[in-house]
Amino acid sequence: MSYTGYKGKGLEFLKKNNIEVGNQIKIYADLPLPYLGILMPRYEYSDDAHIVLKLEDGYNVGLDIDKIKKIEVEPSQAIKKENISKSKTDPTLPRILLISTGGTIASKIDYRTGAVTPALTASELNASVPELSKIANIDTEVLFSEYSENLLPEHWIKIAEKLHSYARSEYRGIIVAHGTDTMHYTASALAFSLLGFPKAIALVGSQRSSDRPSSDATLNLIDATRFLVETNTTGIFVVMHNTSSDDEIACHWATRVRKNHTSKRNAFQTVGGAPAFIVQDNRIEKNKLFNPSKVEYNPKIKFDNRVALVKYYPGFDPKIIDYIISSGYKAIIFEGTGLGHVGRIMYGSIEKAKKKGLFVGMTSQCIDGMVRMTVYDSGRDLLNLGVTPLGNMIPETALVKAMWALAISKDSDEMNKNMIENIALEFSD
Amino acid sequence: MSYTGYKGKGLEFLKKNNIEVGNQIKIYADLPLPYLGILMPRYEYSDDAHIVLKLEDGYNVGLDIDKIKKIEVEPSQAIKKENISKSKTDPTLPRILLISTGGTIASKIDYRTGAVTPALTASELNASVPELSKIANIDTEVLFSEYSENLLPEHWIKIAEKLHSYARSEYRGIIVAHGTDTMHYTASALAFSLLGFPKAIALVGSQRSSDRPSSDATLNLIDATRFLVETNTTGIFVVMHNTSSDDEIACHWATRVRKNHTSKRNAFQTVGGAPAFIVQDNRIEKNKLFNPSKVEYNPKIKFDNRVALVKYYPGFDPKIIDYIISSGYKAIIFEGTGLGHVGRIMYGSIEKAKKKGLFVGMTSQCIDGMVRMTVYDSGRDLLNLGVTPLGNMIPETALVKAMWALAISKDSDEMNKNMIENIALEFSD
Repeated sequence: MSYTGYKGKGLEFLKKNNIEVGNQIKIYADLPLPYLGILMPRYEYSDDAHIVLKLEDGYNVGLDIDKIKKIEVEPSQAIKKENISKSKTDPTLPRILLISTGGTIASKIDYRTGAVTPALTASELNASVPELSKIANIDTEVLFSEYSENLLPEHWIKIAEKLHSYARSEYRGIIVAHGTDTMHYTASALAFSLLGFPKAIALVGSQRSSDRPSSDATLNLIDATRFLVETNTTGIFVVMHNTSSDDEIACHWATRVRKNHTSKRNAFQTVGGAPAFIVQDNRIEKNKLFNPSKVEYNPKIKFDNRVALVKYYPGFDPKIIDYIISSGYKAIIFEGTGLGHVGRIMYGSIEKAKKKGLFVGMTSQCIDGMVRMTVYDSGRDLLNLGVTPLGNMIPETALVKAMWALAISKDSDEMNKNMIENIALEFSD
Repeated sequence: MSYTGYKGKGLEFLKKNNIEVGNQIKIYADLPLPYLGILMPRYEYSDDAHIVLKLEDGYNVGLDIDKIKKIEVEPSQAIKKENISKSKTDPTLPRILLISTGGTIASKIDYRTGAVTPALTASELNASVPELSKIANIDTEVLFSEYSENLLPEHWIKIAEKLHSYARSEYRGIIVAHGTDTMHYTASALAFSLLGFPKAIALVGSQRSSDRPSSDATLNLIDATRFLVETNTTGIFVVMHNTSSDDEIACHWATRVRKNHTSKRNAFQTVGGAPAFIVQDNRIEKNKLFNPSKVEYNPKIKFDNRVALVKYYPGFDPKIIDYIISSGYKAIIFEGTGLGHVGRIMYGSIEKAKKKGLFVGMTSQCIDGMVRMTVYDSGRDLLNLGVTPLGNMIPETALVKAMWALAISKDSDEMNKNMIENIALEFSD
């Protein structure tokens, strides 16, 4: 029996009623009509007075145990246990692999299979998005199942190693289903660690779960598949809605994309430019300015966590930097102000960091635009202290790149060189 | 004699040639024609092999002392020492006060007076922007002269106290000339500390210094003055270019504005909405959705620095939070991911923070959109831990508000109440 996260009173209640996480249940409580849904797991810090149900409309509801009048288990679908699922093959269509890592996009399947092992199997996928089977033969594989706010550099490595194992496969392209919260960080991580990957990889998420009428999951999946099948490109892309309606999907280059809205379907934007591709109903248009040079596939799947991303603000206490230095960090990426500044109050700590051999890079909290540290005295002072300006690299990309560069560089000179070289189009014009 | 920042060889060189910071000088060095400009001060961490000249085109150049063939002091304009300058009065026009705090917008005047005391006097202002004298009688006052990346909460207090001293004055409105790097932080600080201020205050900066042909300073000043003279509004606004051409100026409400580009003239944007006013050639248009309720003037000019703004990212080490807690901080504002999440890895440290009585608020690094922590388990877990969702408050505004709320609240309940109350339109729809 699985009771993930339930404790105390809640746990007792479930055991007494012989109900476990993932069961399809019917509850009579405060309303005349019953609640129908699936018992969801809870996490460590939840109270023990409620149980959580995923309703059929996709929303979760917490129900006070004391108010439950009657609870019944409904006959549930068998939970599919297989790891790789192969679709029925239409030999005239190309093959696409879909790797699932979790997130909202997998939540319909969560819901259908019982919210415990959100196994995005091919048959479920084809059933929920029948258009897919007309475009490609899609095999699916569940790598893990995490909301992306919980992902760590270790997860980037897992994803990259899995993708690497398919680099020379027969698949035309690969979709990675991913939570949207940190999808752009993962995209950057893959862009650096799988440099020159010989296929296109589309990271696809959804801002609204698939069981809600306003969900963007279906179109994102269909158009990501079309993008992989119809274009002959390579590299890592984030593929999401380009507008708030269902008419355009944008394929953003991995190192230039950022989640710029908490809830809009077109939350992802290419910073300081246009998406690499736009997928419309009847055509796929390539951005004329998007011309990555082909490089040989040279995977370097390593990240070193000893990098801090630090946003500067008035009143920032430089002692936090001193703490970071003394904790053994090897690099600091600043989100400075404007053209790449931090207050004079920081100079002493930055000098310490440089003396200790840390890489100190400068990005801007403006997010858009170039860091230019030669315009004002404050910028030149920082240059004199050994701070490295990072052009228009997005702060999140700079963080990921620094973790990667730190892991693959043999010394600080090489680290520096790697950080200022335009390796995966992380600098744009 | 003033040698600010010069040391060693550089200092010797200046002394030998009887030259001080602020002198208009002529230097023959590597080029056949001489460099003409003003000797600029340097800062602590500069090398001693160069001297820095502000050229007539507004750019600074560092000159290698060893390559200087000849150096001469030119007769310089007298540096004006007065603090408040009054303009010639046209009794038919309203009076506007311009308070200068430094930044790029004062750099033309820097240049003209010698870069040492960038005194933005009325006569200089009227000479450089003659249109102003047709709109208003402008008195000016130099409060201090700092690039805004160097400003601290102490400076916010100085500015607020100065403005407070003019709250009941005859001035129709007040312009605060300010560096752009942290102008939005200062704007928020004034919005909270001078709540209900009975006049309109326009923070005005420029993205390109006034001595460059592409400068936005002139139009920003003219239209800020028109805004103050022609509208009958109150409160704090950031007044900057609305487009990349010289056709529209936007007046952004203080708590909803952010610098979203490092260099564009229209770098400032109202997040999640439109500016409160748009100033065009022939008219000033008010945004119909902008309807602040009038509140009584109730200045509370205090800020408590013991607030950390922390951006979460994959690989963030929760020990940094532990350090912040043990350093005596009283509040943490997270820039979480998506709808307001941080990884499960942070829960332990957040629990510690709450046990120690810290206020822990959640904003989103997406910048735009609402924090909604009831949608996913991870959000609900954080709510259970006592994290306070901060709606669509911009992270920078949330930081400033927390510093203010901490200073004015008698206990943590009041702090909480203040943080979630919409005090200065920091929450919008």
